[in-house]
Amino acid sequence: MQINRAATASVDVPRGLAGVVVTDTALGDVRGQEGFYHYRQYSAVELAQTRGFEDVWHLMIHGELPDVARRVAFAAEVGPLRRLPDDVRAALPAIAAASAHSGPLSGLRTALSLLGASQGFRPVYDLDEDRRRADVLAASAAVPTLLTALYRLGQGLDPIEPRDDLPYAANYLYMLTGTEPDPWAARAIEQYLISTIDHGFNASTFTARVITSTGADVAACLVGAVGALSGPLHGGAPSRALDTLDAIGTPDRIDAWIRERVLAGDRIMGFGHPVYRTEDPRSRMLRGIAEQFGGPRVAFAVEVERQVEAILAELKPGRELHTNVEFYAGVVMELCGLPREMFTPTFAAARVVGWSANILEQARDSKIIRPAARYVGPVPPEAVPLVA
Amino acid sequence: MQINRAATASVDVPRGLAGVVVTDTALGDVRGQEGFYHYRQYSAVELAQTRGFEDVWHLMIHGELPDVARRVAFAAEVGPLRRLPDDVRAALPAIAAASAHSGPLSGLRTALSLLGASQGFRPVYDLDEDRRRADVLAASAAVPTLLTALYRLGQGLDPIEPRDDLPYAANYLYMLTGTEPDPWAARAIEQYLISTIDHGFNASTFTARVITSTGADVAACLVGAVGALSGPLHGGAPSRALDTLDAIGTPDRIDAWIRERVLAGDRIMGFGHPVYRTEDPRSRMLRGIAEQFGGPRVAFAVEVERQVEAILAELKPGRELHTNVEFYAGVVMELCGLPREMFTPTFAAARVVGWSANILEQARDSKIIRPAARYVGPVPPEAVPLVA
Repeated sequence: MQINRAATASVDVPRGLAGVVVTDTALGDVRGQEGFYHYRQYSAVELAQTRGFEDVWHLMIHGELPDVARRVAFAAEVGPLRRLPDDVRAALPAIAAASAHSGPLSGLRTALSLLGASQGFRPVYDLDEDRRRADVLAASAAVPTLLTALYRLGQGLDPIEPRDDLPYAANYLYMLTGTEPDPWAARAIEQYLISTIDHGFNASTFTARVITSTGADVAACLVGAVGALSGPLHGGAPSRALDTLDAIGTPDRIDAWIRERVLAGDRIMGFGHPVYRTEDPRSRMLRGIAEQFGGPRVAFAVEVERQVEAILAELKPGRELHTNVEFYAGVVMELCGLPREMFTPTFAAARVVGWSANILEQARDSKIIRPAARYVGPVPPEAVPLVA
Repeated sequence: MQINRAATASVDVPRGLAGVVVTDTALGDVRGQEGFYHYRQYSAVELAQTRGFEDVWHLMIHGELPDVARRVAFAAEVGPLRRLPDDVRAALPAIAAASAHSGPLSGLRTALSLLGASQGFRPVYDLDEDRRRADVLAASAAVPTLLTALYRLGQGLDPIEPRDDLPYAANYLYMLTGTEPDPWAARAIEQYLISTIDHGFNASTFTARVITSTGADVAACLVGAVGALSGPLHGGAPSRALDTLDAIGTPDRIDAWIRERVLAGDRIMGFGHPVYRTEDPRSRMLRGIAEQFGGPRVAFAVEVERQVEAILAELKPGRELHTNVEFYAGVVMELCGLPREMFTPTFAAARVVGWSANILEQARDSKIIRPAARYVGPVPPEAVPLVA
């Protein structure tokens, strides 16, 4: 069997496009060697430690941190967008029921698609910058409402109407439980959300940009991104890291449990990152938040981290395997009362802002993203050239 | 303002990843210089001229053309999958109403997302090949039913139940109108559908593969692809080529109308392709089909093609601008009675098979697709390295 490797002039790149620079961006960067990442010109961790979610949202969408007047105006703009259009609200029970066995992100995917249709989102290439921004804000602001409503409907509970007077994170927790959250929990979740808004050209962000490059509407772009995030290799692990803590159970079992898995070649959930060669800076920040809460669960998590890192350094020398964002994200979300099935959806409630900023940036480029593949199957016997 | 171009080791590639080989494929290839494309080892045009849709669907999904026994078995397998689950059917009026102002592909996007959730599709990385194949067949077989039901609901008509005894294309036309189609129309649409099943690493196919690479479920992958196809730079043009015919109106106006647009720098819809440097082989085949129908509309289209090609060769020498698939696809779909708003959805009803084959191929690779971007914004003032 002959193999056809001719084709036209082509560029060969690493598998999975690893390290392949697809475009320029002014949104931020991840410096894996330094254990540092930033949004525009600001350290993302510093933003999470010193700012509210709306401030960083404004930074991503408008390019700068707001002053007091702009902060108030932005909050007044996005607050009312939390309320769902009537037709979307009416469809949520059916979407929740259909998604009962396929995970909350498949419910979000459907509901966000419906919201975009209902709002009559137009192709981004037909819109000016203001109109594109209005669409991404409308979609993003609705995500916590959709997620919490679908969750509650799945539990047989009525959805809670959003409150305009609460910040993004506090309103999210409020809509989940129906009671105003403890301020420490709201702030911890806010810091988690800020720290996960954006993180380089991950698969969901790239998906959003490929779809944007066709000129599709904002909902098409975000729905694709939600789909990518639902993949276990991308958004799938924060609750699995907690499952590992549960499976180990007690501090005396850590060493044997971990050694057995590592020697069997298993990955330890919550450890290792494709980009960071240092500690994940999000992990360090979230450990600090967890330690402020304190208690035996946190002490156990810290001890697991210490022992796993030591065992991995011994058994896989030079690999630099440290906790990634998922490990302490799980611990913090559990401390704040979030159910495990809402861990990845909560991630989506932050990342939608990063996707939005990437959609706006990509929409300013008019070049469609259309790569190539190398045909390696059997040669067609009758490749009669068509000459024009 | 300092610009940061440091980052890690990276590969620079052409804008839009043009010509960048992302992966190997055994599904087919487009030879732009030769005006030839193929599915596996068969000329796609020859398949369209000699085979039924189900045969080529089988080829794409199972890797080979079916013999008679397999053809019968495959038709018996996919026929019943045309019927929608009750919960999806019940949700269609709401989806159709919400999508009234955002186009039929936003309705398909929502309905297909709901179908995947309702069917409990699991992440592809958790499934064996047989189960993945069952999911893509279930989703693909439902697409014509979803599209025609949403269209009819939008027109205030009741959806038509699918018929298992009709081939794919004939059943599609039947569900649209409620009457069994003229055999010539059914065959013309079947040939169009076969010829657009797959076509290299276009943006929607690439989107499906990026999402698949995260391990997400089949609905997530297909919904992202539908979103990409809805972009005007990708699936948007077949009806606009017909609008051009209407705007020109009569043969005597062709020359002046076209010259004015070309000299103004406008693109002429239905002409030019990013890959073909020859006539688009799909266009040639579809012109042949249109000419079999005959009549003044076809004669006018042929005359427009002749004059536009001559004017473009004169005003843009060396550019090799010929009719692309959209020009005669529009003519053929109009001759077969398809309303213009269903042109791109009809394209989707074929391409879903190509996406499916690409999802199956990508799912056999376990490497996530995650490229990079170059940060070109202002340097963060406090990039304090975190050392583990």
